[in-house]
Amino acid sequence: MSNIRHALNTRRADDFAKWYQEVISAAELAEESGVRGCMVIKPWGYGIWERVQRLMDDRIKAAGIQNAYFPLFIPLAYFEREADHVDGFAKEMAVVTHHRLIANGDGGLIPDPEAKLEEPLVVRPTSETIIGDAMARWIQSWRDLPLSLNQWANVVRWEMRTRMFLRTSEFLWQEGHTAHSTREEALEETHRALEMYRACVEEDLAMPVIAGEKPENERFPGADETWSIEAMMQDGKALQAGTSHYLGTSFAQAAGIQYQDKEGAVQLCHTTSWGTSTRMIGGVVMTHGDDDGLRVPPRIAPHQIIILPMLRDKPEDEAVLAYCEEVRAALATQAAMGEPIRVLLDKTPGKASAKRWDWVRKGAPVILEVGPRDMENGKVAMLRRDQLWNADNGKPAMQFIARDDFSSQAASLLEEIQHALFTEAAERRDANITRGITEWDAVADHFKTSGKYPGWVEVEWSKPSGDDLAKVVERLKGHQLTIRNVPREAEPANGACIFTGAPAVERILVARAY
Amino acid sequence: MSNIRHALNTRRADDFAKWYQEVISAAELAEESGVRGCMVIKPWGYGIWERVQRLMDDRIKAAGIQNAYFPLFIPLAYFEREADHVDGFAKEMAVVTHHRLIANGDGGLIPDPEAKLEEPLVVRPTSETIIGDAMARWIQSWRDLPLSLNQWANVVRWEMRTRMFLRTSEFLWQEGHTAHSTREEALEETHRALEMYRACVEEDLAMPVIAGEKPENERFPGADETWSIEAMMQDGKALQAGTSHYLGTSFAQAAGIQYQDKEGAVQLCHTTSWGTSTRMIGGVVMTHGDDDGLRVPPRIAPHQIIILPMLRDKPEDEAVLAYCEEVRAALATQAAMGEPIRVLLDKTPGKASAKRWDWVRKGAPVILEVGPRDMENGKVAMLRRDQLWNADNGKPAMQFIARDDFSSQAASLLEEIQHALFTEAAERRDANITRGITEWDAVADHFKTSGKYPGWVEVEWSKPSGDDLAKVVERLKGHQLTIRNVPREAEPANGACIFTGAPAVERILVARAY
Repeated sequence: MSNIRHALNTRRADDFAKWYQEVISAAELAEESGVRGCMVIKPWGYGIWERVQRLMDDRIKAAGIQNAYFPLFIPLAYFEREADHVDGFAKEMAVVTHHRLIANGDGGLIPDPEAKLEEPLVVRPTSETIIGDAMARWIQSWRDLPLSLNQWANVVRWEMRTRMFLRTSEFLWQEGHTAHSTREEALEETHRALEMYRACVEEDLAMPVIAGEKPENERFPGADETWSIEAMMQDGKALQAGTSHYLGTSFAQAAGIQYQDKEGAVQLCHTTSWGTSTRMIGGVVMTHGDDDGLRVPPRIAPHQIIILPMLRDKPEDEAVLAYCEEVRAALATQAAMGEPIRVLLDKTPGKASAKRWDWVRKGAPVILEVGPRDMENGKVAMLRRDQLWNADNGKPAMQFIARDDFSSQAASLLEEIQHALFTEAAERRDANITRGITEWDAVADHFKTSGKYPGWVEVEWSKPSGDDLAKVVERLKGHQLTIRNVPREAEPANGACIFTGAPAVERILVARAY
Repeated sequence: MSNIRHALNTRRADDFAKWYQEVISAAELAEESGVRGCMVIKPWGYGIWERVQRLMDDRIKAAGIQNAYFPLFIPLAYFEREADHVDGFAKEMAVVTHHRLIANGDGGLIPDPEAKLEEPLVVRPTSETIIGDAMARWIQSWRDLPLSLNQWANVVRWEMRTRMFLRTSEFLWQEGHTAHSTREEALEETHRALEMYRACVEEDLAMPVIAGEKPENERFPGADETWSIEAMMQDGKALQAGTSHYLGTSFAQAAGIQYQDKEGAVQLCHTTSWGTSTRMIGGVVMTHGDDDGLRVPPRIAPHQIIILPMLRDKPEDEAVLAYCEEVRAALATQAAMGEPIRVLLDKTPGKASAKRWDWVRKGAPVILEVGPRDMENGKVAMLRRDQLWNADNGKPAMQFIARDDFSSQAASLLEEIQHALFTEAAERRDANITRGITEWDAVADHFKTSGKYPGWVEVEWSKPSGDDLAKVVERLKGHQLTIRNVPREAEPANGACIFTGAPAVERILVARAY
């Protein structure tokens, strides 16, 4: 297969970080904006986000959660209320201090000193404080509970080192916020949201994840429990793809979210919050991308099937276009995986072969090419993005199929591709989780000697807390390692803690991470 | 009809501004947030916005326009490039000057003086400058044109006096931005977008509008032409519900948006921009609201049919709920106006009669009540929100209908309500446009003597410009009047200018406005 000429310049195996940047650019997902830390999400990247949004939103609505919208700006005082939360978030935020610009007399503009705000406003890094403020107004009695809200919004956390989709100062996300009468019900909601994330990310994004609880040191600032879903990227690193927090009563205490119970007593609410973001798009790239660019799972592909007419500025062009339009129309009336098939007849100027490689890099699941001869034969030339190359001759694995046959198989083909991408990623993930190591030195060795892609290691520990945990975290940090989570579905512990030798109580995943 | 006990405290006829605030609150659309100038959009209000968004977005996508996302923050320098634009927008904007907070040593937080930005960032009031910057990168040749983008985003324009949905510091909107090779094509796009807005607002929001060009003094800062759709509110004032701008080549000049034409010469692009916002929700309230609250047109109602089980904490409750669930399921499988019917079985605690009035105030198009007797008779009790009262006895006009009959008529009923709301508003609008006045004094008299709701006046004018126009604007201002637009479909002028006596060239709409 050495004669394959890949569509990208960089191979994953050679320089994963550079490859990532090249996919982002070559697939036209996003680009630097000229504004520090902020990216422009280009139409193909935003189209993928819109699909993810739609599918996640359907799941959110199906759970009976209502969308609402809260202010972009949060007064400083709101942050001062919850001490742990302040400590966790107070550092890097965008602060609005003026509400007017004036000419500086030199053709430029400056903030008007006369228009300084009495109290600076913070651009929301997350909305617990301001939504909590509204919940305190909206909840009076047990009848008002549970209160389950979700917001789709942009948030800002000032970042010094940014990487597109993975860490940017501004990003897009959804944040769920719920209030309950009991701890049990709030915990149930925390787990429901986590499971919703697992299902969406695995079924829609075809990205296998491991759901579990974060250790104490990785909790959301102010939370009692933080749960996550973790995905393995193709370089073996972990990506946290969603989190769900049980906040106990501390945010309720800080914001005054309380209710009168059936007996007339005033009680604090138990609250939760949970979020996923455009970061998931970075995960899709690092899970499904290959040396030819991105491969978008059909469920989240803005266009699932691309039809490329091969035009030659000749009279028969018109007939080829008409034929393509017929193929398109036949596909557009069909459904795949419960939704109408999204098919694009790409009539933009340019040679079909160049456009083919553009769509390969963008990762459209299926590309059809149609020239005069295909038309005469009643066929289409089909390229499956997940089976791009013919290993025997190193050429694109183009299949010539009767148009009606393709049309009747299109829905099952898309389903098959969705399934194949998930299976490939799940098999790779499973092959790269090492279990059974019982000595810390062997863990350290594993990450030293397993080459570039050591994957994850699952070990047993005694769940130390406070200073003891800090020592463990420090030891892991020496190898650029972190604890990802305590897998929800791991076997029970039955040995000794790999850090302390004490009896272990649970299993944890140790990995390098984004 | 004097014995009707309306669901609101304030009548439109008594105090329209107070009534508006009461509807916003009673229909649970939005509320003050505690953050100056920013509102919280509550679930029912946000649900209406989501419907508007979905329907508008479908139209945008159908026109081949691609969604993308650009940064929230815009460097000052971008604003300095386009002189007219700066003059128009430079005044009231939120300015980010710091990127970190620190403890002030007194339990509080302050912007960290060490973390002052070298160049302040403006929270986008609109995105022409930053999208123009990207367009300059993306467009090289005629092959890249037209470039048609749209963004759904929050924007901020600092407002001293705010009114919910109509004028808030932060609001939600969509902004279309397109670049073209010729003036003709850009003008065509300006008109296509305007017509798209007219169609969406009239067909989906059931809000009749008049489309036309804004006079020179009302143009978007930096635009060559600004077009608008104007709706008449129930107090006779005008609400600008959407605008579409032909920007000429001035933004292209400022941002360097140019292309190589087929002959190899470098040309400036002609650009357009167009926007609609959450302001439309305020328009829906003031168009369709009545003395009992909001009436939401079915196409934009988050729930079109509400089913209220009448429960009495008795054993038969279960059967009533099961019956309601059957009614719900039968409706949910049907389509109305091309979409599945949105039906809610409201099982929240509380008496059915209290919940009925909540839904009346919220404006759900159809409310069904089901008690044990209805169940026994195989019926539902139906209330049409647009025909709420029985004029004969001053009681709610409840109709008892066999459930199967209701189910089979539901789709046409919703369509009928959609149509009825539009017709009612269009007839009121048409009855309140006065034509044929040829003397300025008569116009002034009209607005002085026509009571609270003088509506709009259509007059002829000579389209003065510059200082002459400024004098006209000043004269209108003396009566709190503005020129709304030059209606696209008005009769040609055939008389004298009402301001100058010179031969008129076109007709304009004069009105008080939001």
